[in-house]
Amino acid sequence: MDPVELAALLGLTELPAGLEAVEVELDRAVVVTRDEIEQPARRVVLGGGKRLRPALALGCAAAATGRDGDAVVDPDVVLGATAVELVQAGSLVHDDIMDEAGERRGVPTINAKEGPSQALLVGDFLLARAGQLAATVNQDVAGLLAAAIADLCIGQSAEVATLFDVDRSVSAYEDSIRGKTAALFRAACEIGAAAAEAPDGAVTALATYGTAFGMAFQVVDDVLDLVSTAEALGKPVGNDIREGVYSLPVLLALRGPDGAALEARLGHRPGEDEVAHALALVRGSDGVAAALDRAREFNAEAVAALSELPPGPARDGLAALPDAYLDWVLDAKAPDLVAGAATAAGR
Amino acid sequence: MDPVELAALLGLTELPAGLEAVEVELDRAVVVTRDEIEQPARRVVLGGGKRLRPALALGCAAAATGRDGDAVVDPDVVLGATAVELVQAGSLVHDDIMDEAGERRGVPTINAKEGPSQALLVGDFLLARAGQLAATVNQDVAGLLAAAIADLCIGQSAEVATLFDVDRSVSAYEDSIRGKTAALFRAACEIGAAAAEAPDGAVTALATYGTAFGMAFQVVDDVLDLVSTAEALGKPVGNDIREGVYSLPVLLALRGPDGAALEARLGHRPGEDEVAHALALVRGSDGVAAALDRAREFNAEAVAALSELPPGPARDGLAALPDAYLDWVLDAKAPDLVAGAATAAGR
Repeated sequence: MDPVELAALLGLTELPAGLEAVEVELDRAVVVTRDEIEQPARRVVLGGGKRLRPALALGCAAAATGRDGDAVVDPDVVLGATAVELVQAGSLVHDDIMDEAGERRGVPTINAKEGPSQALLVGDFLLARAGQLAATVNQDVAGLLAAAIADLCIGQSAEVATLFDVDRSVSAYEDSIRGKTAALFRAACEIGAAAAEAPDGAVTALATYGTAFGMAFQVVDDVLDLVSTAEALGKPVGNDIREGVYSLPVLLALRGPDGAALEARLGHRPGEDEVAHALALVRGSDGVAAALDRAREFNAEAVAALSELPPGPARDGLAALPDAYLDWVLDAKAPDLVAGAATAAGR
Repeated sequence: MDPVELAALLGLTELPAGLEAVEVELDRAVVVTRDEIEQPARRVVLGGGKRLRPALALGCAAAATGRDGDAVVDPDVVLGATAVELVQAGSLVHDDIMDEAGERRGVPTINAKEGPSQALLVGDFLLARAGQLAATVNQDVAGLLAAAIADLCIGQSAEVATLFDVDRSVSAYEDSIRGKTAALFRAACEIGAAAAEAPDGAVTALATYGTAFGMAFQVVDDVLDLVSTAEALGKPVGNDIREGVYSLPVLLALRGPDGAALEARLGHRPGEDEVAHALALVRGSDGVAAALDRAREFNAEAVAALSELPPGPARDGLAALPDAYLDWVLDAKAPDLVAGAATAAGR
């Protein structure tokens, strides 16, 4: 989903201009006196990414104020959107240290190329730079951004604490992703609105929208890790199983008829044959479909929160986005699953 | 130097009350829903520390406004001082990952006890929490704090990039410590003043004061790593040599008569006999005395910046602090050096 597709969906013709302004600010944000920071920061910040969070921030600024196109290119809104994307980049750098990841988007991670110490510092730097940009906007934006980073850490830590735990509960899973993923979606939405000086009620409604859409986003991401292909994902399938992150489809499959067989392959660092067995068992279970149902429920929750906002094309765009994103990403990364569901529905 | 000694030195009888309020806020700041974050965060934040940076923030609030005792217990000033100490704690947690340190202040590091992933997250959390507190004070304080964290990363990264480099220049050393240490001293002073709504001129003067005192602080810390005892330091002497961090006394000794002999022991990860030889060569050189002279110069620069502030007891206290701190720490951790210098001066 590129900026033009996002713009069409969000009903905001100015969105590409706003996202272009975000790129300019991202490029500025990584300029520092030391090459050891700037070069790797530049690689991770400007090396691609869907810019979904900045687009959300811009869309929310428009929807919350009714200023539509004008809000999307407001310099404060652009800075707030940039700050959110810098947090995303910094947290990916730190995630890659924890996962000992060698590549991301086809290029070496900072961890792999410059080493874990520089990766730690570049991640810290990106989070700090995000804070600097947020503080130039206003006090509210600075506070919302810092709170989201704290929540990211808490959610990620909850995940680390339950690695390889076959007794992980669904609510423990949801608590973790509410922090590690949904908090930054929430912040993107809140910050877009707060940077545009939207009324408090709109900021609160968009916090609910962003949280719920972020939950759906992560559930679907977790489904794809289990059912997509290495080619479509750009990384091996089943990495969560390998690393002991038991996501919603796995937790639901553990409670299903083949739960005992699945459990025998989990709870420890698995061999590749165990990964393959576990993936087959999860795919054959109801866990995948049930998880996608849960994602649709979160999307519905997101859309319901928008009733607090003034009606208009920007609000309509935000309302269409969650399901459109879910359909797009499933079609792009798990076409067989979509075809299978269509066949099942047509029976 | 405990709060009562600091208070006497700073001429602020209310300082212990202000520092006690900082302790209360630190205790509040580490409360989170997840024990995996709270327990280690609590251990590092509340496990000791001289609280020199918060004391500086409180002292600067008093000196910058002329409000003296009143400013020291101002809730915004206390929150700003707390935010600075949280940054210090978070950066220590991340330093311990990079150094693979097993203990700090006699207790296991988070890295050693909970593992590097949790240490990374706890460090990130503490930096984020600091940002949250700063944002509750005002926009300036939030911006100053975030800028200091970015500078910390840049300075630390410059150090990582010159490990084991015997050709490291004195200016490269000073650039690195200006970021990794002086930036947070600067922020403590600026934030104390900015939280108390001091005039811009006072904030700028105190930035100069804090930077220069921070430079002196780090130079002396680096001297002590070379000339103190394991007992006084609470860690082995010569760790910087072991880790390849060549500080000012070493760089100066490399340019002295025994430079070639010293260089033969450096440039690579040394054996313990090489560490002992290198330490003896540095101690026997003029590098230690010259580094201490440089520290006194930085202190003089710090004091000179105070002429911009309104005269009064708080300003006098700040003026006395840099040399008093230097004398205190040398006496506490390297009494032989002080005695030797006195003998030399008496010749």
